[in-house]
Amino acid sequence: MGSRIDEEAATEVPKDEAREAEIHALGMRARRAAEALATCPTSVKNDALRAMAASIREHESHILGANALDMKKGRENGLSSAMIDRLDLSGGRVEKMAAALEDVANLDDPVGELIDVRTQPSGLRIGQMRSPIGVIAIIYESRPNVTADAGCLCVKSGNAVILRGGSEAFHSNQAIAMLMAEAGDKAGLPENSIQFIGTRDRAAVQVMLMMDDCIDVIIPRGGKQLIEMIVEKSKIPVIKHLDGICFIYVDESADCEEAAKIIVNSKVQRPGVCNALESLLIHEAIAPQLLPQLLRLLRNEGVEVRGDETVQKIGAKLNDGVKPATEEDWRTEYLDLILTVGTTPSLEAAAAFINANGSHHTDSILTRDHANAMKFLAAVDSACVFINASTRFSDGAEFGLGCEIGISTNKLHARGPMGLRDLTTKKYVAFGDGQLRV
Amino acid sequence: MGSRIDEEAATEVPKDEAREAEIHALGMRARRAAEALATCPTSVKNDALRAMAASIREHESHILGANALDMKKGRENGLSSAMIDRLDLSGGRVEKMAAALEDVANLDDPVGELIDVRTQPSGLRIGQMRSPIGVIAIIYESRPNVTADAGCLCVKSGNAVILRGGSEAFHSNQAIAMLMAEAGDKAGLPENSIQFIGTRDRAAVQVMLMMDDCIDVIIPRGGKQLIEMIVEKSKIPVIKHLDGICFIYVDESADCEEAAKIIVNSKVQRPGVCNALESLLIHEAIAPQLLPQLLRLLRNEGVEVRGDETVQKIGAKLNDGVKPATEEDWRTEYLDLILTVGTTPSLEAAAAFINANGSHHTDSILTRDHANAMKFLAAVDSACVFINASTRFSDGAEFGLGCEIGISTNKLHARGPMGLRDLTTKKYVAFGDGQLRV
Repeated sequence: MGSRIDEEAATEVPKDEAREAEIHALGMRARRAAEALATCPTSVKNDALRAMAASIREHESHILGANALDMKKGRENGLSSAMIDRLDLSGGRVEKMAAALEDVANLDDPVGELIDVRTQPSGLRIGQMRSPIGVIAIIYESRPNVTADAGCLCVKSGNAVILRGGSEAFHSNQAIAMLMAEAGDKAGLPENSIQFIGTRDRAAVQVMLMMDDCIDVIIPRGGKQLIEMIVEKSKIPVIKHLDGICFIYVDESADCEEAAKIIVNSKVQRPGVCNALESLLIHEAIAPQLLPQLLRLLRNEGVEVRGDETVQKIGAKLNDGVKPATEEDWRTEYLDLILTVGTTPSLEAAAAFINANGSHHTDSILTRDHANAMKFLAAVDSACVFINASTRFSDGAEFGLGCEIGISTNKLHARGPMGLRDLTTKKYVAFGDGQLRV
Repeated sequence: MGSRIDEEAATEVPKDEAREAEIHALGMRARRAAEALATCPTSVKNDALRAMAASIREHESHILGANALDMKKGRENGLSSAMIDRLDLSGGRVEKMAAALEDVANLDDPVGELIDVRTQPSGLRIGQMRSPIGVIAIIYESRPNVTADAGCLCVKSGNAVILRGGSEAFHSNQAIAMLMAEAGDKAGLPENSIQFIGTRDRAAVQVMLMMDDCIDVIIPRGGKQLIEMIVEKSKIPVIKHLDGICFIYVDESADCEEAAKIIVNSKVQRPGVCNALESLLIHEAIAPQLLPQLLRLLRNEGVEVRGDETVQKIGAKLNDGVKPATEEDWRTEYLDLILTVGTTPSLEAAAAFINANGSHHTDSILTRDHANAMKFLAAVDSACVFINASTRFSDGAEFGLGCEIGISTNKLHARGPMGLRDLTTKKYVAFGDGQLRV
């Protein structure tokens, strides 16, 4: 993930009281917007999202102009081609952003949904009602489409949002955020529902982390260093989106042919993302049968294999050149065509190893044994645990959530792909007709 | 709530590396216990809870002996009679504690519950499974029954627990925790599922707050000062249980007779607890009609009324002696027979005032108007929002949750009365048969 924003945000900056007061005033404006948004009708929110989409389409050339400035500066600063690609909004990406806004307008509004309303012995009907959280601050890295995605998900769920994007995408983010805020205002959305802080302002993050009177939750999307700094310094609850060191465990009873296909799909279908497979554990009883065909398939796909002794031995026989896996390899998110492979004596040992070495993101068991499948679900402490499926399915759209704001590695509140519902809180509501407590 | 523990816990203590290492080792033991508890069968957990209840009954005189030591020390240290009453375990309270353990054994196990499993276009069946959070640390005040209640709720939900009680109840807490741990061990619960840290150890809390490698969540139950210190210093997510400044808003359309009954019940049925009424707002159009009878009823119950100018005027006419309400009164949790009363021009103004001055705990509207009732539910940003019911219903048992671990004033994860389910996290699970991502 982005490394530049990390360095910027993680650096201590001198105190600037005037700037602190400005950021706090921005927070209080968000708080007031949130109060109005909490009772804003669904139709007004949806009309506003559609007006934002229209405005983004209409001003595509303006956005691309701002984006060109960022790209030019990025190239001058020697950004990698991968980073430049993340920045780039040409090639239909502006249209995609507008379409995503319309998709969110078409989703059900989670606000006001009543859950589990039951009549209690007192006669009170008691349940929970989904309500906006309030003010959400999103701190994110280079990709400018996050401005549109995160902004619209927050507004649809009735939350005011403070967007703090990365410096590489400053002009692009600012252009998109301004167009959205303007279109929202015109469509009758409460003023200051969407506010943007450019990253030129390095003190902003550290000031925001202390503003627990006007920010309810902080969602950081960026590198590990940034997220760790935020967790340590924030007085405000943080929903983390950390790395994905995803494991597959191949059980003794697995179907070897199906297993090989799922492993290859998990590793190579899109290796640069957080739900790609990084580590493989094979039950030692099935390793001699599975490994020869699997190593061949992986070699054909250009995957470098780093293995334990058993895997190296079988790999050597096959001349597949398996490199030795180090301790470090087991804890590395490669985001590349590299796979760590080991053998294990039991499902229990595999689960314990995954809990100790994985990143609690997404892990899958391949097995034909029902009891083992259910044991793995219970024993592995991760946001997403699969049976006989590619780790690449760990995704809001594949889960049927519509658009996602990210993949939470928190245990509390939201875990795994976060959709609209995860941007709400649940308040208890009671419908009475004069009940008194006795 | 407890004030003594506050001072102790909120005081900075010198660093003691050996003690730090000990506390960390205790945390790591809890982590290992949690891994085993995650797959511990329901029957083993229930048998362990019943064995704990039996052991507490069997050793009642031992517990009462320890409790007598705490009471003696408390009297010597000049604890208030209310504090001494909170400490006291005589008069059948040990039996009540044992019965509560059996009640929790009889509740459904939330672990493994599957929620919203749906088949996606890929053919994967995807849903969420309730799973234990892991390691829970409870930091609490004088009442020793919390040791039993919190301990058994954590174990039933598959979590290892670290109990850190207040110094006043040191001997009582230790006796109860040791009996529970021993009975649990004998019944086959994983070792170290329940661990206790006596408050003699003042450094423990501050060390625990940094142990995010072995504690997943901290639940403080105590005074405001303690909780604020924990929120500020903790690297670990905190589920707060703050004060209850509960409001009732009487709408223009309310039934005056019913309203007066609900207000009196909310105020006087048990004034010393967090869901008792502290502040009342009356629509100015109904105030002249409601106030005379209401002020009389409150006077008969011995409630002191502090009012705004309108309330004072009406009170003066009636010779009810309404005192002027100060700004401070509106933000005070009296926990006593005192009530702040004001008038308001509209529902919107009332909701804004409650959001600004209440503690987001429990607020109720009294009205005959359906649209206003629903507006109030949406506009008031509190853990519990009621229509035509006493605020005193804000309680786990009244909500049908069984035993509660407290009333959360967090917005994220758990809000309002927290039952067993709130001590679990939800992991996404996918049931596949070889699905590959395309």
